[in-house]
Amino acid sequence: MSSEMKHKKIVEIVEKELTCSAHNLDHVYRVYNLCLLIAKSEDSVNLDVLIPAALLHDIARVKESKDETGEIDHAVLGSEMAGEILRALEYEETEIYKIKHCILAHRFRTGNEPRTIEAKILFDADKLDVIGATGIARTFMLAGQFGQRLEIDDSLDQYLKTNTVENGRIKDVSKHSPFIEYEVKFKKVPEKLYTQKAKEIGIERLKFMEEYFNTLRAEMRGIK
Amino acid sequence: MSSEMKHKKIVEIVEKELTCSAHNLDHVYRVYNLCLLIAKSEDSVNLDVLIPAALLHDIARVKESKDETGEIDHAVLGSEMAGEILRALEYEETEIYKIKHCILAHRFRTGNEPRTIEAKILFDADKLDVIGATGIARTFMLAGQFGQRLEIDDSLDQYLKTNTVENGRIKDVSKHSPFIEYEVKFKKVPEKLYTQKAKEIGIERLKFMEEYFNTLRAEMRGIK
Repeated sequence: MSSEMKHKKIVEIVEKELTCSAHNLDHVYRVYNLCLLIAKSEDSVNLDVLIPAALLHDIARVKESKDETGEIDHAVLGSEMAGEILRALEYEETEIYKIKHCILAHRFRTGNEPRTIEAKILFDADKLDVIGATGIARTFMLAGQFGQRLEIDDSLDQYLKTNTVENGRIKDVSKHSPFIEYEVKFKKVPEKLYTQKAKEIGIERLKFMEEYFNTLRAEMRGIK
Repeated sequence: MSSEMKHKKIVEIVEKELTCSAHNLDHVYRVYNLCLLIAKSEDSVNLDVLIPAALLHDIARVKESKDETGEIDHAVLGSEMAGEILRALEYEETEIYKIKHCILAHRFRTGNEPRTIEAKILFDADKLDVIGATGIARTFMLAGQFGQRLEIDDSLDQYLKTNTVENGRIKDVSKHSPFIEYEVKFKKVPEKLYTQKAKEIGIERLKFMEEYFNTLRAEMRGIK
């Protein structure tokens, strides 16, 4: 089977697995596009590793969110699930090993640092998707889902004193706002990235976000 | 009682009435700020009419949304409710008449065109609040609330063929997206406004929105 044919099969499996979680499916395609964009600026990227890894990186997302024990880490379980899928598609063991590493290492929390260029690209693409115009859309969609208000937050300092950030997650989701997420979370994304191209994209995306939030604040205060 | 004191009393009443509808309350304050901004560019605006009208314009919003018959128009009912509130605060009948007109005429749908400068300013401020950075935040918060997806809409033409817009509202809310709202609804806002200042603000806000949606599309396609 050709690489293209295998990728097609993987897409079918991913769409089936994430069909009840359309948000994650859309995220997978954006991360896939970003991986290809970053890969263009790097030497000797193995696309037969990067593409399957990008498509499969959130394969265990639904299982993690359905898990009531809170023990499932989608990076760990996803890596295992990907291994089985790839074996069934007759990928070679050396490739499977590399793809599994990308998936295992794509998350901040697992403690598994990305070692290969493909793993670094996937990590970076996944993080970039929370900032920029996409990040703005995502953070306000989540705000709407959680019934948050659209109000200026002038009490960031106070918020930070009372709500510590745990593992990159803000503790009390009902009390935070896109303004706070931007200040405590999004601004730190570029410095955590591995590849030069991703850092450049990250800095551009943050500039765009900053302009957006400044404009929003000015509009809300009746200045423009 | 001084004007300021009366406005304070009105704020208390509005906050009590809209307390279970925080989104509308936040909107009221943004519209109030916008009214003051637009008023600066107009001659002989009566702020003792405009301010109470801005604060009270959505006073019947909760009653409209709770009404299962669909017969309540918050502009019509709000105008009546405002009349009673203002009378209790010993406003003069001539002022009450003018404030009620502003509230009655602030909506596209009622068929009551704004005749006075205060009514035109309130109408414009209310419409401006759906566009710009604020409009972006609002449309994605609604998208999140309705469980919509963040996907590129390349099928706008087809959408427009099958989903007619009724009274400025898009018929099937689950099928439309912020991209479509921008194309069919937001873009038309500036041409519907009355005051010069509001038109200028509207054009600026649309430019900002256009840049935003172009950036979002580019990011989603993996171009930046």
